[in-house]
Amino acid sequence: MKSRIYELVEKGSHGRRLNQMFDNFIMSLIVMSLVSIILESIPDVHSKYSEILYGFNILSIGIFTIEYFMRIYVSDVTHPSETRLKSASKFIFSTYGLIDLLAILPFFLPMLIKIDLRFLRALRLTRFLRILKLNRYNDSLNLIWAVIKEKKSELAVTGFLTFLILMIASFLMYHIEGDKQPEAFSNILESFWWAVATLTTVGYGDIYPITGLGKFISGLIAILGIGIVALPTGIVGAGFMAKVEQVKQKKEDRKCPHCGCDLLTRQHEIHSN
Amino acid sequence: MKSRIYELVEKGSHGRRLNQMFDNFIMSLIVMSLVSIILESIPDVHSKYSEILYGFNILSIGIFTIEYFMRIYVSDVTHPSETRLKSASKFIFSTYGLIDLLAILPFFLPMLIKIDLRFLRALRLTRFLRILKLNRYNDSLNLIWAVIKEKKSELAVTGFLTFLILMIASFLMYHIEGDKQPEAFSNILESFWWAVATLTTVGYGDIYPITGLGKFISGLIAILGIGIVALPTGIVGAGFMAKVEQVKQKKEDRKCPHCGCDLLTRQHEIHSN
Amino acid sequence: MKSRIYELVEKGSHGRRLNQMFDNFIMSLIVMSLVSIILESIPDVHSKYSEILYGFNILSIGIFTIEYFMRIYVSDVTHPSETRLKSASKFIFSTYGLIDLLAILPFFLPMLIKIDLRFLRALRLTRFLRILKLNRYNDSLNLIWAVIKEKKSELAVTGFLTFLILMIASFLMYHIEGDKQPEAFSNILESFWWAVATLTTVGYGDIYPITGLGKFISGLIAILGIGIVALPTGIVGAGFMAKVEQVKQKKEDRKCPHCGCDLLTRQHEIHSN
Amino acid sequence: MKSRIYELVEKGSHGRRLNQMFDNFIMSLIVMSLVSIILESIPDVHSKYSEILYGFNILSIGIFTIEYFMRIYVSDVTHPSETRLKSASKFIFSTYGLIDLLAILPFFLPMLIKIDLRFLRALRLTRFLRILKLNRYNDSLNLIWAVIKEKKSELAVTGFLTFLILMIASFLMYHIEGDKQPEAFSNILESFWWAVATLTTVGYGDIYPITGLGKFISGLIAILGIGIVALPTGIVGAGFMAKVEQVKQKKEDRKCPHCGCDLLTRQHEIHSN
Repeated sequence: MKSRIYELVEKGSHGRRLNQMFDNFIMSLIVMSLVSIILESIPDVHSKYSEILYGFNILSIGIFTIEYFMRIYVSDVTHPSETRLKSASKFIFSTYGLIDLLAILPFFLPMLIKIDLRFLRALRLTRFLRILKLNRYNDSLNLIWAVIKEKKSELAVTGFLTFLILMIASFLMYHIEGDKQPEAFSNILESFWWAVATLTTVGYGDIYPITGLGKFISGLIAILGIGIVALPTGIVGAGFMAKVEQVKQKKEDRKCPHCGCDLLTRQHEIHSN
Repeated sequence: MKSRIYELVEKGSHGRRLNQMFDNFIMSLIVMSLVSIILESIPDVHSKYSEILYGFNILSIGIFTIEYFMRIYVSDVTHPSETRLKSASKFIFSTYGLIDLLAILPFFLPMLIKIDLRFLRALRLTRFLRILKLNRYNDSLNLIWAVIKEKKSELAVTGFLTFLILMIASFLMYHIEGDKQPEAFSNILESFWWAVATLTTVGYGDIYPITGLGKFISGLIAILGIGIVALPTGIVGAGFMAKVEQVKQKKEDRKCPHCGCDLLTRQHEIHSN
Repeated sequence: MKSRIYELVEKGSHGRRLNQMFDNFIMSLIVMSLVSIILESIPDVHSKYSEILYGFNILSIGIFTIEYFMRIYVSDVTHPSETRLKSASKFIFSTYGLIDLLAILPFFLPMLIKIDLRFLRALRLTRFLRILKLNRYNDSLNLIWAVIKEKKSELAVTGFLTFLILMIASFLMYHIEGDKQPEAFSNILESFWWAVATLTTVGYGDIYPITGLGKFISGLIAILGIGIVALPTGIVGAGFMAKVEQVKQKKEDRKCPHCGCDLLTRQHEIHSN
Repeated sequence: MKSRIYELVEKGSHGRRLNQMFDNFIMSLIVMSLVSIILESIPDVHSKYSEILYGFNILSIGIFTIEYFMRIYVSDVTHPSETRLKSASKFIFSTYGLIDLLAILPFFLPMLIKIDLRFLRALRLTRFLRILKLNRYNDSLNLIWAVIKEKKSELAVTGFLTFLILMIASFLMYHIEGDKQPEAFSNILESFWWAVATLTTVGYGDIYPITGLGKFISGLIAILGIGIVALPTGIVGAGFMAKVEQVKQKKEDRKCPHCGCDLLTRQHEIHSN
């Protein structure tokens, strides 16, 4: 019984096909529940189909809850530990365990304590994070994450420099444009809003300089924006390159110097015997 | 006769010059028929020159149809197979065969079945895809395609992360700005529209936050936009680098270790004899 | 006494913990004084809490002044030189010494000479630069700086090409759009403002072409903007890659060819004895 | 006499200092004449200082003309050839010779033939191109140019794909938004203008979709814009990396395998004697 559930919810070698179907089912449910969140926000749809949407919500929460308890049940297989309780708590406090919990909590929480409904609705978005759990893109996600982590101090410095430029620009602009446009550049926070919109080149057009000096500084900030894009892109690009090189090097290091085939594969083991 | 047509429509070793002229002629026709599509959309031009435009349309369709049947005729040379029928169907269902068909279909389809005229006009755009068929940029197109394909899972993860950020941002913004701007942020779909326009830094200015918290989140999204640009650029850049390295490696591997010249060229063959 | 102060304000081997606490305290003070500058600019907050803000300003300036003199006091340890005076002046005219001075000057300057208040407020922003002094991100900042410095002539050429495109575009646009929109494109400077907003893809929407030719040139400029982003990004990315390679090469050069461990570490010294 | 002029206008080994002063003088004149072009476009300044501006214009043209003839005079040194005439024509039809000519032509042309004044003014901008002639940034400019040239077919394909996306998007949008906004999306050309503004993420806000489907396509185009930026950036970045590698390889190839020093420098020559 337990091994069956294990094969169902976790990727097993024999139950792979069953697990894949289960994964696809959960993924469809996640996508459908996201669609239902969007539909709920449209007044016309909400008033017309509120019952169907509510029913689907109950259903999906129910399935997610059952799945959550199934995962706790097989936690001694997925998170082997001394006691059952330790295994369960290991799963519960793992990243994906918490994501699973957050996905069902919004429904059960209001039964226990009074809570802001908006916050609860936001929690429902966590369901979406569960897609990350699917094994399909794990390697790529880990690669991207590894690159960002390796370059985190360079990226932090870039972030800091960006913030510095934003601060100086918004400070200057507040003093330059503040007199002419007291409503748009009413304080440094508003000026900061302009600075972010300009440096990131969004430029909504709700706030822009009208004085000559203001336009000059605005132009400088916008051009600096190109440089600000260039820095992280260059850093991240170099990081990806280095990772690709590393993987290639590792593959070469694993090659048997005599026969040239991979030292870790079965074929070589037979070969060397 | 058949070999002549083959030399004309496909790049042959002897008929290269003839084929190049034919290619240029077809390309001019494609560009001209695109111009005619644009001109047709301008009311003044359409009412004045509708007959000329219609005439040109018939003419170009005619030429494309003849070309299509010529290609079917020589399909046993370009797609050698057991029977003539197999060769023909091999060509018809090849990528370029389908493109060729789509380019002439919009004209013949309404004779057979009733169909939306707009859809037909859209089909006419497929003619443009035929430019891709020209041999000139094949290598570069293949290179770009190979890089994108090799990095497709990393790019998919980036795409997924982008979608996640968009969803969370539009969800939050709907609850934050919805009260103050019920018309702009009327539902999550509208909020999503704002999120896309902000993250991609387009920023039309038709919808933007006015509350403090909304501006803060909007700023965060815009800055994340820089990171979102950095990720695919870094990935693609690393991919191009790796491809360049690969090509260089291949060239080196093909070098004769004794005389240093290319093992695959004729000169070496003579040399080693 | 002096060694204690040295341990406090500069990173010492024994007083590391004390120094870290001091660093964190100064950093909090910097962040808080930035917040106070922002709060001062909001009329409601300014009129209500002006006394508290003023008090905090005096307090922070006081602490920064004491710190500055403490650093001068221990300058013979941090900047060892022949005489005390030389050490002190070495510190005072070092980059960080000047930043420290600029952070307190705005308060004391008006006591000596009459000066524009706005300029003084701008000087207060220099406090923010002090965060750069914290040891944490030094390596990354140096790396970024080294890359920009190494590629400075390529980046300068890119900058020059950008300026050239901006000049030509604004000149053309003034003559093309000037007649139709005499207020928006009133002179080449205004036209230059449009060119910068277009090339950097900010696009506020306060000024844009309405004639066909103007739209055509505007589109060209916008597409060139993509290329302008590609150039510095590519240059900087290549620079980061080369730096990463250099560091790797250096590490390999330092490896002992016999035992494989780092030649500069203690372990190898013992080992080779 | 001729060698003196040669030392003045071209970079000579002995007259380097003199030539540098001359270069700086010409550069200042170019910058000043650009400023005068900008000033002329401002009505207030033009009406007040028209005489000074005209005088300066005459003066600068005069100096550029003298310089041009000086360069023709020494052309047999800079462009050595069989006859004097051939040398002169070699200079006149060289890139920089044509730039020099274009810089003075706008003044003399109206004396010979009737010509549009605007076109003449545009020609005056060519003076700016002369800055490229200065030796300072030659290496970097050549490097950038070499990278773009090497990757020109990949960049051309990127450009073609961009154009394809723009065409398809503007065609679709014309049919989708045309009914609801007949003034904004009046024909495919207007729709193309929207597509360029969206893909390049300029987003002026003068034209944007209002229908649901239109917003969806607009969002797709904007997100594709990120990819469009990623492609050329990645291509150019890989190109710069390859160039850096090439230069490093060349340096290594030039190293003497015995003493390790550069084979082309004087020191090695002495050393090997």
